[in-house]
Amino acid sequence: MKRRNAIVLVSGGLDSATALAVARDEGFHCYALSLDYGQRHRAELQAAAQVAEALGAAEHRRMAVDFAGIGGSALTDTRIPVPEQPSQGIPVTYVPARNTVFLALALGWAEVAGAGAIYIGVNAVDYSGYPDCRPEFVTAFQSLARLATKAGVEGAPIRIETPLIHLSKAEIIKLGTALGVDYSITVSCYQADEQGLACGVCDSCRLRQAGFESAGIVDPTRYKDGS
Amino acid sequence: MKRRNAIVLVSGGLDSATALAVARDEGFHCYALSLDYGQRHRAELQAAAQVAEALGAAEHRRMAVDFAGIGGSALTDTRIPVPEQPSQGIPVTYVPARNTVFLALALGWAEVAGAGAIYIGVNAVDYSGYPDCRPEFVTAFQSLARLATKAGVEGAPIRIETPLIHLSKAEIIKLGTALGVDYSITVSCYQADEQGLACGVCDSCRLRQAGFESAGIVDPTRYKDGS
Repeated sequence: MKRRNAIVLVSGGLDSATALAVARDEGFHCYALSLDYGQRHRAELQAAAQVAEALGAAEHRRMAVDFAGIGGSALTDTRIPVPEQPSQGIPVTYVPARNTVFLALALGWAEVAGAGAIYIGVNAVDYSGYPDCRPEFVTAFQSLARLATKAGVEGAPIRIETPLIHLSKAEIIKLGTALGVDYSITVSCYQADEQGLACGVCDSCRLRQAGFESAGIVDPTRYKDGS
Repeated sequence: MKRRNAIVLVSGGLDSATALAVARDEGFHCYALSLDYGQRHRAELQAAAQVAEALGAAEHRRMAVDFAGIGGSALTDTRIPVPEQPSQGIPVTYVPARNTVFLALALGWAEVAGAGAIYIGVNAVDYSGYPDCRPEFVTAFQSLARLATKAGVEGAPIRIETPLIHLSKAEIIKLGTALGVDYSITVSCYQADEQGLACGVCDSCRLRQAGFESAGIVDPTRYKDGS
């Protein structure tokens, strides 16, 4: 049944790998979508392909979107340094409207594939303060999806599923581990090198390290300093 | 003042050219955004560049989005013929989630450019029955934009402006003509040739022809049959 297809946004990071594992565990045939948006490092996209394969996605598709042309974020503009200390407010690693664009593209694919759901690994607990990771953002996108699509008009709207939204990083890691996610192949670091080795000091690395520690699970992350 | 900047989605067609003229008339510095989404003909994008220049846009940016990879529409999949007779329901020229993606990308640029508004030339009167041209879709996107962005979080949400939404095609043509739009450089046809010559028989050509006739304005469209 086609409605058992799901589009899963897979970035190559820890959260989206867990979201993919949850979608599979809930019985969906998963179509993994990664966005090539001019992010600083390519290791993230390679990790996404590995994650999709390891977790049995039926297909992995990479779509290019020219975010670098827009700029305005440390993740797409190499002139803006990635902060290595915690900051107040919305950090410079925020990519303007990124999750809106990602969900919009997933919505297009979902409509063509006849998918019943889109899974996205946003979470609002141990997160970086991005506006488009909040539950109210997801709810607003769900309303939009109902109105924006043929599926919605025909009474079978595509659901936006956020299985991690209320979990802490430690809870996400425990959940994924129970579902067989191999976190050693995921890359969370904002400035990983070409081999996918993590810096250990950016916001994303700090959240991830603290998550493994709090979960009591050995951190399999490969760091640049060899640790 | 930066808030007097506006992003205007310019497709190369009649409606978006009119929306650009309205935004300029309302005093905005306009940044024209065209999406290269694998549409059948390139003449549309060339027309967009001409329209942006003719109407004094401060900048014209073309962003590539891989809609062809998704397929499912006669406008992006050459295996699906463009219908030459009116159809019931949502037509095959509907591109899944297109306006959601367009507005999302405009939102990203608007946030970086500090723009106060996004103009989009959708209209819900003489239109093709696409779900993402309806007023309720626009309202939902406006709610999303407030939640999705730094600007929204900081209390200065980016407005979505749809000056044509309640106008008939004839009213749009009269409005644009009064604002100095040269419709001879616009291309509305779903299957224009490389020179931008129109077929005269697709949905979009039929709506446009009827609009000029009803407005009592000579149709400057260049047709393939030389008329």
